[in-house]
Amino acid sequence: MAVEVVYRSSRDLERLFMDKAEADRHDKMLELAEALAAALQKATPSLSEQQAEDIGVFMARHRDLFAKAFKNNPEVLQELPASAEPA
Amino acid sequence: MAVEVVYRSSRDLERLFMDKAEADRHDKMLELAEALAAALQKATPSLSEQQAEDIGVFMARHRDLFAKAFKNNPEVLQELPASAEPA
Repeated sequence: MAVEVVYRSSRDLERLFMDKAEADRHDKMLELAEALAAALQKATPSLSEQQAEDIGVFMARHRDLFAKAFKNNPEVLQELPASAEPA
Repeated sequence: MAVEVVYRSSRDLERLFMDKAEADRHDKMLELAEALAAALQKATPSLSEQQAEDIGVFMARHRDLFAKAFKNNPEVLQELPASAEPA
């Protein structure tokens, strides 16, 4: 038995990482997902909380692709996988 | 009476512009909105077509802000207006 260090995001207490950089990436992804969900739900009140959260997480997981799409290249969105499951 | 030139996007035949650059901007906005709506509806099948379209147009209208959010700064989304109406 030994004591070991694990890392987690304060936004998702259940997911533990051995690697701090990975925990950081997860935290940043969730930060973006939360900001997106809040913005979309404010703009589209007919969205359920669950739908807003799902869309936020989906877009945050594919952050680089959406960054390109918003910057100047909407076509890159065709590269997205069909499912909202984790890549 | 006189003949004059007006411009429109082939994606939105009803909206006419006197200025070609403005018609261009409208076309680019709609291009992004359509790509977003298609991507989100594929990823979140519970979204109605109308919801996906509304979200696409909303995000495309605030393209610069979302570009920043996806690049590195989710907090800018707090600057968004509450309503999905045209800015």
